[in-house]
Amino acid sequence: MRTLSLVGIGSGNPDHLTLQAIRTLESADLILLPRKGDEKTELADLRRMIARDLLKTTPRIVEFDYPVRDANTPKYLDGVNTWHDALAEIWGALIHEHAPGDGHVALMVWGDPSLYDSTLRIADRLRARGLTFDVSVVPGITSLQMLTAAHAIPLNTLAGAVQITTGRNLRMQGWPSDAATVAVMLDGDCAFQTLPANDIHIWWGAYVGMPQQILIQGPLQDVAETIVETRAKARSEHGWIMDIYLMRSN
Amino acid sequence: MRTLSLVGIGSGNPDHLTLQAIRTLESADLILLPRKGDEKTELADLRRMIARDLLKTTPRIVEFDYPVRDANTPKYLDGVNTWHDALAEIWGALIHEHAPGDGHVALMVWGDPSLYDSTLRIADRLRARGLTFDVSVVPGITSLQMLTAAHAIPLNTLAGAVQITTGRNLRMQGWPSDAATVAVMLDGDCAFQTLPANDIHIWWGAYVGMPQQILIQGPLQDVAETIVETRAKARSEHGWIMDIYLMRSN
Repeated sequence: MRTLSLVGIGSGNPDHLTLQAIRTLESADLILLPRKGDEKTELADLRRMIARDLLKTTPRIVEFDYPVRDANTPKYLDGVNTWHDALAEIWGALIHEHAPGDGHVALMVWGDPSLYDSTLRIADRLRARGLTFDVSVVPGITSLQMLTAAHAIPLNTLAGAVQITTGRNLRMQGWPSDAATVAVMLDGDCAFQTLPANDIHIWWGAYVGMPQQILIQGPLQDVAETIVETRAKARSEHGWIMDIYLMRSN
Repeated sequence: MRTLSLVGIGSGNPDHLTLQAIRTLESADLILLPRKGDEKTELADLRRMIARDLLKTTPRIVEFDYPVRDANTPKYLDGVNTWHDALAEIWGALIHEHAPGDGHVALMVWGDPSLYDSTLRIADRLRARGLTFDVSVVPGITSLQMLTAAHAIPLNTLAGAVQITTGRNLRMQGWPSDAATVAVMLDGDCAFQTLPANDIHIWWGAYVGMPQQILIQGPLQDVAETIVETRAKARSEHGWIMDIYLMRSN
């Protein structure tokens, strides 16, 4: 049976890799390495560096281009589904060509394959297309873990619940009713601005765990504007940004 | 300035350690190692094994006994707060004795120091007692990540929110209103039994990531009883249990 390993590589620093991640990558016959597209160039470079410099034995590496996601599809989820189909098509062709039979194919996944990542869903689609394989998931450190580590704060309050959500959900639904803490990922529009700012504390980070890391924290009403400005400036300086934040209501 | 490093070591397998965790432990002057008490013996053994066999240079190790948490304190949070005070007292004395001045003291934390863990709160108490130090947090793989990896499932639905909560909260508040996915930790009483079982899928795991790992998944109404029975049996066999589960409403 063919094996497909989805290996979490953490959030921008090769030191985030676990021993299990390194061993899994070393034991693969083939590593599929996304080159560009939705991915930032630095992230592709990090994957290449891990494969070339960190592994004791380097498996065969095949690079591929990401399909472009159509941002103009009327419904967000339709666009994502079409994009997942396109990726499943590409993976399937590459696996057929380079790893026939019972090979071990690995993919390096930013963060952890379980958290706001598409690879498990794409693997499902690949299976629906008739390719048979076992999936093996190797967890990695997420940007949310890097955020709380960088600020040296717990994710949860004592015995309190935590909601992990998206900027889109926060904007549409407001503060989740049962959670003392809200962590927001995938927010391109600073959805925290839509909340009533009093009595909320925010811990924000961009490029967390990377050399260019930026951290801001404070009462939302005091720092919201600074975050919006800092984010816009950093994005224009670096050409891309990945940010994340955590909030607690008092 | 003294540094206190809180190092996440993952969930029961030394392969979960990140390179950053290993380097941080190697660079410490002193590792404080909890021996027993609230901790299970196997967990103390794992910490010892990591310190002795996995590090290239082994710092000085000082073992200490956990204070006993008084389960009879009328209010749960009062009991926890008293226990944190007692631990801060112990840490403070050990650090004063074994790492005066600007030493680097490390503690190995099960999972990740950010998630339902007390060490950051205890460090705050230590600071309130007048000990000055920098805190450095090194994230580790959590049992929640091991659960989703073992079942090869994503934590979140596509663009959906996730609530991480405790058995106590779930029992008292029911299914959180805004989350498609609920992950439950610290549940000694199988609180999933209090939910209406129809239309909920559960993925349960005990000792996730460890050799004795047990996994069960299915519609809640079909597998709830099996989980309760399996949990009780495993707990009595091993003398202890750590379990966790994730649920999605359909």
